[in-house]
Amino acid sequence: MTHSPPAPELVVRRWFNSAQPLSLAALRGKVILIHAFQMLCPGCVLHAVPQAQRIAERVRDPGFQVLGLHTVFEHHEAMGDAALAAFIHEFRLTFPIGVDAHTGSDSAPATMRAYRLRGTPSTLLIDPRGQLRWHEFGAVDDFDLGRRVGQLLAEAAFGEDRRPVQSSAQASEAGGEVCDEVACVLQPGRHSEQGAGSR
Amino acid sequence: MTHSPPAPELVVRRWFNSAQPLSLAALRGKVILIHAFQMLCPGCVLHAVPQAQRIAERVRDPGFQVLGLHTVFEHHEAMGDAALAAFIHEFRLTFPIGVDAHTGSDSAPATMRAYRLRGTPSTLLIDPRGQLRWHEFGAVDDFDLGRRVGQLLAEAAFGEDRRPVQSSAQASEAGGEVCDEVACVLQPGRHSEQGAGSR
Amino acid sequence: MTHSPPAPELVVRRWFNSAQPLSLAALRGKVILIHAFQMLCPGCVLHAVPQAQRIAERVRDPGFQVLGLHTVFEHHEAMGDAALAAFIHEFRLTFPIGVDAHTGSDSAPATMRAYRLRGTPSTLLIDPRGQLRWHEFGAVDDFDLGRRVGQLLAEAAFGEDRRPVQSSAQASEAGGEVCDEVACVLQPGRHSEQGAGSR
Amino acid sequence: MTHSPPAPELVVRRWFNSAQPLSLAALRGKVILIHAFQMLCPGCVLHAVPQAQRIAERVRDPGFQVLGLHTVFEHHEAMGDAALAAFIHEFRLTFPIGVDAHTGSDSAPATMRAYRLRGTPSTLLIDPRGQLRWHEFGAVDDFDLGRRVGQLLAEAAFGEDRRPVQSSAQASEAGGEVCDEVACVLQPGRHSEQGAGSR
Repeated sequence: MTHSPPAPELVVRRWFNSAQPLSLAALRGKVILIHAFQMLCPGCVLHAVPQAQRIAERVRDPGFQVLGLHTVFEHHEAMGDAALAAFIHEFRLTFPIGVDAHTGSDSAPATMRAYRLRGTPSTLLIDPRGQLRWHEFGAVDDFDLGRRVGQLLAEAAFGEDRRPVQSSAQASEAGGEVCDEVACVLQPGRHSEQGAGSR
Repeated sequence: MTHSPPAPELVVRRWFNSAQPLSLAALRGKVILIHAFQMLCPGCVLHAVPQAQRIAERVRDPGFQVLGLHTVFEHHEAMGDAALAAFIHEFRLTFPIGVDAHTGSDSAPATMRAYRLRGTPSTLLIDPRGQLRWHEFGAVDDFDLGRRVGQLLAEAAFGEDRRPVQSSAQASEAGGEVCDEVACVLQPGRHSEQGAGSR
Repeated sequence: MTHSPPAPELVVRRWFNSAQPLSLAALRGKVILIHAFQMLCPGCVLHAVPQAQRIAERVRDPGFQVLGLHTVFEHHEAMGDAALAAFIHEFRLTFPIGVDAHTGSDSAPATMRAYRLRGTPSTLLIDPRGQLRWHEFGAVDDFDLGRRVGQLLAEAAFGEDRRPVQSSAQASEAGGEVCDEVACVLQPGRHSEQGAGSR
Repeated sequence: MTHSPPAPELVVRRWFNSAQPLSLAALRGKVILIHAFQMLCPGCVLHAVPQAQRIAERVRDPGFQVLGLHTVFEHHEAMGDAALAAFIHEFRLTFPIGVDAHTGSDSAPATMRAYRLRGTPSTLLIDPRGQLRWHEFGAVDDFDLGRRVGQLLAEAAFGEDRRPVQSSAQASEAGGEVCDEVACVLQPGRHSEQGAGSR
């Protein structure tokens, strides 16, 4: 009855702000907002991370969960676990944050590749059936994001889900990168030789 | 089956940005966001009016309508029709704006009194059945407002409506006023003697 | 010894927030920041008026004075004295504000014409000798404005003044107008026939 | 003739964005703005670092120099040279940035201790004679900072300098730390035993 694709499971190496590992399977039944970021991406730090924290604080609904995903595809030596722990502490982030796992030789991590994300920040919405309903690369407007979350929560209350995914992002699996104030982008091709073998 | 109160009809003396008079009855079937403001209220001009305009531009959904309502309860001589027309022109507002009618001797206009609004800015949401589902006095967060609009639009898509009104505003019918950066408030009592006889 | 032009005297019909009429001549010896605005100009209301108020509150220096100047060149019927009084009250402006006088048949008022301002908002700096040292049309950056004010105050402390005027604005004396979010502009030509005879 | 204290020389381990090492002695004759920060301090990243970059871009005056100083007193493992290099690259910082050197066993670096800074962000102004004229801990208003810079530049133009230092910050030499959205603070006492022996 529904035509949205199932959301690939998260491939997370380590969780922060969570007593035990989390998974989409275990969160089935909830609307999930995934905020994919890098701690040294200006568009993330200045806009998207504070937005995710505000939403996590405002939406006190047992049917809703904010998850962070640290999808490091550049400057790996500067964004390791100790650095991320310090970042989470200093920016007072309280929602669960998973470290996207690097598998194979690709510079982009596994979950980022599975969702074909273009870069950071990226925002994803998953419905209670575990289907990816929307994802967007770059800065997302508060009102627009609220409207999408509200629609999914209302659908969940009616026990149904008939809407197709709206994908505004077409992503390469890996590549080089470049950042501006708004976002960091994976550039297909620049790293294509090294990346090609890993997929 | 539903327990929300019907939204009182608008009592509008004149419309701007609309070729013909509008009414809630004629808009039945749509989700309506009413933005009640005064053109000289700082919280309206600096926050709520730009928010309403952004929403009117972003939400291109035939099932959704933004309406402005100029609810003047103070400085009447400074916010007449010519002043409002200049304000709408200069701030490039494109959504329909009605002038709330003054009936009787009360300083607060008729629609404002019927909804018992506390002051300006106030934001109201009406569902497709014509029921008042939410209203708030003061600055409203973009994400929160988006979530409420999204929920009503999703409900409309399912053809049902079972939620009760959530009223965060308790309002006096008329009174004096005081403004700060966030809002202008009707103060019960200051005008109570003159107001009492008019209702 | 100095080559800056003397600042033309203000032609003000009425003062708000001042017990008695003010003049540049009477303020000689102080650095004066003049903020020329219209109460229905979006760039003024959203940026320049709050900036002027912040500066008036922050700079507690007896050698410095902020003056507002209501230079109405459009929508005259909507920006009369009662409207301005309400605006000043609601936006809690505390610095002296003069109403630029309309003399002759020109839609632009006298002081605005004498300074050849392009539109609103405009910001002007006058040194203790009464010389116009800088004027700018449109939004002005806080840091840049602070730097200019600091330079004039330091010069005043040294009792000298040798810098030439830096004029970034070339203005027509009168004309039509158009506003955007940043500013309202006098358009030369639109009113040129009626304006020509008045000067 | 002047009563301001001489500014202690910078103790910098490594420079970024500069072909050769810099020093206050070598910059004598210029007004210097020093922006002391940590790359994982929210108040720095969200406010003070962008402010320093804006100023470096705006003030094109050969008598003025912006310097960054990376004064790491916490999370040392997360803010090493590779991390700082990535941060400078991603945030597109163009002004010279020195790494404050850790000497002895104190968690606070040498220049930070010499200036008795309370934490990050801190902003310092040094006049052309090499005297510390002002320093402030926490967020600094753009207009206020511009005014101080303008005053020093004007003084420099007059070849004199008679003003006393205005110190709004009272600092401990070392200690523990705590961050909020505005700033990270060194807490005297927490590290006092270990710190005492190092000086």
